[in-house]
Amino acid sequence: MKRESVGLVRTQIYRIPGEVPLEHGDRLTGVEVAYETYGQLNRDKSNAILVCHALSGDAHAAGYRDGEEKPGWWDAVIGPGKGLDTRRYFVICSNVLAGCKGTTGPSSTNPKTGRPYGLDLPVITVRDMVEVQKRLLLHLGVERLFAVVGGSFGGMQVLQWSVSHPEMVRMAVAIATSGYSSPQQIAFNEVGRRAITSDPDWNGGDYYGRAPPARGLSLARMVGHITYLSDQSMHEKFGRRLQEKTEYSFQMDLDFQVESYLRYHGDNFVKRFDANSYLYITKAIDYFDLAGGGTLAEAFRGAKAKFLVISISSDWLYPPYQSREIAEALASNDLDVTHCEIRSNYGHDAFLLEAGQMNYILSDFLSHSSVGDVMDRGVVTIGLGASIEDAARLMMEEEVTHLPVISEDGRLAGIVTAWDISKAVAMKYTRLREIMTHQVMTILEDDPLELAARRMKDHDISALPVLNGEGKVLGMVTSDGISRLIGICR
Amino acid sequence: MKRESVGLVRTQIYRIPGEVPLEHGDRLTGVEVAYETYGQLNRDKSNAILVCHALSGDAHAAGYRDGEEKPGWWDAVIGPGKGLDTRRYFVICSNVLAGCKGTTGPSSTNPKTGRPYGLDLPVITVRDMVEVQKRLLLHLGVERLFAVVGGSFGGMQVLQWSVSHPEMVRMAVAIATSGYSSPQQIAFNEVGRRAITSDPDWNGGDYYGRAPPARGLSLARMVGHITYLSDQSMHEKFGRRLQEKTEYSFQMDLDFQVESYLRYHGDNFVKRFDANSYLYITKAIDYFDLAGGGTLAEAFRGAKAKFLVISISSDWLYPPYQSREIAEALASNDLDVTHCEIRSNYGHDAFLLEAGQMNYILSDFLSHSSVGDVMDRGVVTIGLGASIEDAARLMMEEEVTHLPVISEDGRLAGIVTAWDISKAVAMKYTRLREIMTHQVMTILEDDPLELAARRMKDHDISALPVLNGEGKVLGMVTSDGISRLIGICR
Repeated sequence: MKRESVGLVRTQIYRIPGEVPLEHGDRLTGVEVAYETYGQLNRDKSNAILVCHALSGDAHAAGYRDGEEKPGWWDAVIGPGKGLDTRRYFVICSNVLAGCKGTTGPSSTNPKTGRPYGLDLPVITVRDMVEVQKRLLLHLGVERLFAVVGGSFGGMQVLQWSVSHPEMVRMAVAIATSGYSSPQQIAFNEVGRRAITSDPDWNGGDYYGRAPPARGLSLARMVGHITYLSDQSMHEKFGRRLQEKTEYSFQMDLDFQVESYLRYHGDNFVKRFDANSYLYITKAIDYFDLAGGGTLAEAFRGAKAKFLVISISSDWLYPPYQSREIAEALASNDLDVTHCEIRSNYGHDAFLLEAGQMNYILSDFLSHSSVGDVMDRGVVTIGLGASIEDAARLMMEEEVTHLPVISEDGRLAGIVTAWDISKAVAMKYTRLREIMTHQVMTILEDDPLELAARRMKDHDISALPVLNGEGKVLGMVTSDGISRLIGICR
Repeated sequence: MKRESVGLVRTQIYRIPGEVPLEHGDRLTGVEVAYETYGQLNRDKSNAILVCHALSGDAHAAGYRDGEEKPGWWDAVIGPGKGLDTRRYFVICSNVLAGCKGTTGPSSTNPKTGRPYGLDLPVITVRDMVEVQKRLLLHLGVERLFAVVGGSFGGMQVLQWSVSHPEMVRMAVAIATSGYSSPQQIAFNEVGRRAITSDPDWNGGDYYGRAPPARGLSLARMVGHITYLSDQSMHEKFGRRLQEKTEYSFQMDLDFQVESYLRYHGDNFVKRFDANSYLYITKAIDYFDLAGGGTLAEAFRGAKAKFLVISISSDWLYPPYQSREIAEALASNDLDVTHCEIRSNYGHDAFLLEAGQMNYILSDFLSHSSVGDVMDRGVVTIGLGASIEDAARLMMEEEVTHLPVISEDGRLAGIVTAWDISKAVAMKYTRLREIMTHQVMTILEDDPLELAARRMKDHDISALPVLNGEGKVLGMVTSDGISRLIGICR
């Protein structure tokens, strides 16, 4: 299938009304969230995927912004025909709280002082970032995510989502990440922070409107950059090749391509990132420890999502054993978890670079959805003894056109539709059992989504009650709700 | 066997007379070398072991200096009964050129200006460092090393020794090192250098007598420190334990033990190391590439030593594959090479910490010497047709007491000693064959050293000619020369 671009995009801002309470007690007012969306939200609002970005990412995950030559940071994976297929899914990406790409962060104006927060911004946690994302989703009308997906620090947000709001997450895809920051990860982050705070231009975080701590931030980025690559990929990419010279300079200057590359990217980073945001985000990463005082297995006790955990063979910053720990903790709670390992020499960055493997794994996982993954669980039913008037009133109130009719033992007895009600008025029936359809087409929770779609199409019906193995009604799927999710490419 | 300390030691200074030419053309005058020695040089001067230190090491490898509580950096391995057994070996360790622990480096006075060199010191290479070590050895009367041993950057010096002066190295022990700096190693070094040169206090390297670039050097050390540990050892040593608190501070401050540890050691490093030396030494490491434009196998073409290559299972800075590359390159030249891997979770630092394994491997390798490893190859012989007067004169000139007598076909015909000469004078003999011993005890090149010692002891003789398989004389071993090397503990 041809993979296309989402085309021209625009970053939007949502200003959260009221206060945003933070995990450790503080409250923020006037919080703004920068976000982008790709694709269309379906009528059921059941096809939304939240993409969570990594340390230096932003809301611009795909497509092109006006006047820019480079596409969004995960353009390889988001778009028509790609792993996160925007013909099916409504993809949302927002800049994290404490970031510097449009969402409130240390460089934003503190409403109390009228000046940039700097270090007056309270320390932000991954849980706080997820709360802000949740507020954005509700603003967009999304009450339940089809999936939440992210790599690296984005994967930490995915895991936090799955335990903070289990009822809002159908599927969770955590890539090249960990359930906690390890001491080595903390150590590298601390070096980055120390580089920034050692720069005299940092000035206690109060440098806005003046020269930023460019040397410190550049240095922090250089260290980070090394950890994103693998030894092997550096051999392939740079070897011991010299930069624009044929012999060693025998000067205390740069000689090798790898030095030049790191300096270039370090210096470039300063143009697009705020040093204080680097401090806040790395601190949030360090604090991240889903297990808290307990075990990771205990942490996932309340989770409900179907999980995909992806590790990268050559990733030494978030090594595969940390993905295995997540998968094992999930499995110990009898959660549905798949663990894939991407074979790559690219190191941690492979989740951004191995487009082929990422697209395959993501589209395979997401499209192999079962009815239970996407059904509307908040289904309204009516008892078999109810009157036609009761049914009509309930349909009006709940804005539904189909009502499953439940017998006293809780099993499905039939279904009644708005069309049946009008028929009753015309024919002067008064009892539900006289007008309802008795032979109801149903589908099981674990049946594949494709089967539900085919059944509705074959029988020309627009909704199916979803039953468990005992015949109890768990929810409904509608043709509208799943039409965008399936069958486009197969 | 009980392992003991070498006791009180003193760092000495040798001032190299004349000039020291450098690899890329410059010359240094007035070069001083700081060094320590442990044990006694035997009369043959055949038991000297040179120990080469790593990036931040110095000449103080073992024992205690007056008033100091901590022993030398490799005290675990150097001393009576240890891997480098000072009852057998004369161990030498010197601070590298460009260092800051007594050997000439950027903080030394430039004789041309009377002020510290700073960046006016030419860039120094590993080959230059080896040349200075060679000058020290010759000053100490050592013309051939029993062994040269070193880990990490010290291992690079070992490899350089083996190819720069193959005739001077009997055995070479390269630990946790590489035949070249990889791009990842260069990248970490560049980050360290950049941290130093970004510090305004660095002032282009001209900071002596003022505040040194403490923040930059501390930061460089922090990065380095992470690379010396393993992920696993950091889990064990620190985990996610907090530093003197029970809850996260929710401040932009340090929370975790690992952060506190790195800062403490970074700040401490500033007290004992010169930032400019850090620049020079890391640059020498980056430039190190034994293969140059060719292959590592070609680089070792002229090497003659017997090699021991030691890798560490959890070392990710100098990973085991780099030791394998060295071992394979040596083996492809039909050189005698043993490759051992230390099983350890400590990462790169294991060569300093795994005393048990290091001592065992080193003493086993060094004591399994053959006669060929220690024999004096510069043996003086005399032809069977020579006169007694010729023999007497030769003994006087060469200061030897034993002369192997060689027949016309090059084989050993007998041996004549000073005692035989005096016998000839007394008995009025004139021809060598009348006084020499015809039934000469000999030993083969590949025989173990222990056999030579036993043979001399059993027959009450003090020297043995060493023959190859065809009966040609290759050299001599003397009881004095090997007495310190063998038999003390077995």
